[in-house]
Amino acid sequence: MPMINVKITKEGATNEQKKQVMAEMTEVLARVLGKNPATTIVIIDEVETENWAIGGEPVNELRKRVS
Amino acid sequence: MPMINVKITKEGATNEQKKQVMAEMTEVLARVLGKNPATTIVIIDEVETENWAIGGEPVNELRKRVS
Amino acid sequence: MPMINVKITKEGATNEQKKQVMAEMTEVLARVLGKNPATTIVIIDEVETENWAIGGEPVNELRKRVS
Amino acid sequence: MPMINVKITKEGATNEQKKQVMAEMTEVLARVLGKNPATTIVIIDEVETENWAIGGEPVNELRKRVS
Amino acid sequence: MPMINVKITKEGATNEQKKQVMAEMTEVLARVLGKNPATTIVIIDEVETENWAIGGEPVNELRKRVS
Amino acid sequence: MPMINVKITKEGATNEQKKQVMAEMTEVLARVLGKNPATTIVIIDEVETENWAIGGEPVNELRKRVS
Repeated sequence: MPMINVKITKEGATNEQKKQVMAEMTEVLARVLGKNPATTIVIIDEVETENWAIGGEPVNELRKRVS
Repeated sequence: MPMINVKITKEGATNEQKKQVMAEMTEVLARVLGKNPATTIVIIDEVETENWAIGGEPVNELRKRVS
Repeated sequence: MPMINVKITKEGATNEQKKQVMAEMTEVLARVLGKNPATTIVIIDEVETENWAIGGEPVNELRKRVS
Repeated sequence: MPMINVKITKEGATNEQKKQVMAEMTEVLARVLGKNPATTIVIIDEVETENWAIGGEPVNELRKRVS
Repeated sequence: MPMINVKITKEGATNEQKKQVMAEMTEVLARVLGKNPATTIVIIDEVETENWAIGGEPVNELRKRVS
Repeated sequence: MPMINVKITKEGATNEQKKQVMAEMTEVLARVLGKNPATTIVIIDEVETENWAIGGEPVNELRKRVS
């Protein structure tokens, strides 16, 4: 029944990686909090880098500046 | 003024269906809670099936397995 | 499997009213989109009126001004 | 460390505009609440107009009706 | 920089348990996706059982019925 | 019509400060993106420090450690 929402920038995570993240997070809630994995939902939002800022700077510009 | 956020997997809901969902949910809050429909917002997020897991399994794989 | 999040100001909704809202919204997704009600989640966030603004004005002040 | 999530309809906001919104909102939290801008995150969700309703009406239809 | 939001019903999770959940989820994103743990945020929302429904039924009533 | 959600740790922000944050953020969207302030909503979530982690560490422990 729990709901886990993961927000990351859209920078090439593969389906295999996302699958692993969702499986492991579901397992964490089951093991630590006793939550029923069968009804646990995980949703990953992949956000375009121009729509995400940290330190007031868009990530697409940050990536260019520090690469 | 209320805000309703509906998250569903992206699996072919039509504009007509989404329109009906948004209209009916707005009506529910107006009728049951007396909320002003004029300022009620509904936002539907359609999430790719590989970014949504239930039971620790991505929905795109679940759909293949049970079809 | 869908997730519905309803955000309203905390202004006295009863458990009976909230129960009705959650039941009806679950039914809307089942009837209109064919979603499985057994795994549909509804979460209501009741937000203090001083933490909610519309038109740039906190609702607690709006309520005093227009009452 | 704060997280700001801005939801708008997808109607042509440019990267320059979004950059300015994210920079200014980060600055507001730093100046008014003393929050560390270095770890402040801003995420903009641009939502298709057919997935956003106000007054129970989808924005894509609203735009046609009032234009 | 990622943001993880965990929504659970408020049913007695201890600070130690929540601490472990937040630490492990941060580690998952670092190990699987290479995300920087230093700027990863985890937020746990504990929701009153009368404000959470599954299967259209509030959890506070579900708990009474099945206990 | 836009929706702004600000998540901060619950550490003593006053109503005056929150009011200013909500007014200024509404103004930013109106000035930069031309959004109608009358229907712009801002919601501030104040999260207990034990329910918020950065760097995998709960903020309540972080505050003790660095003070």
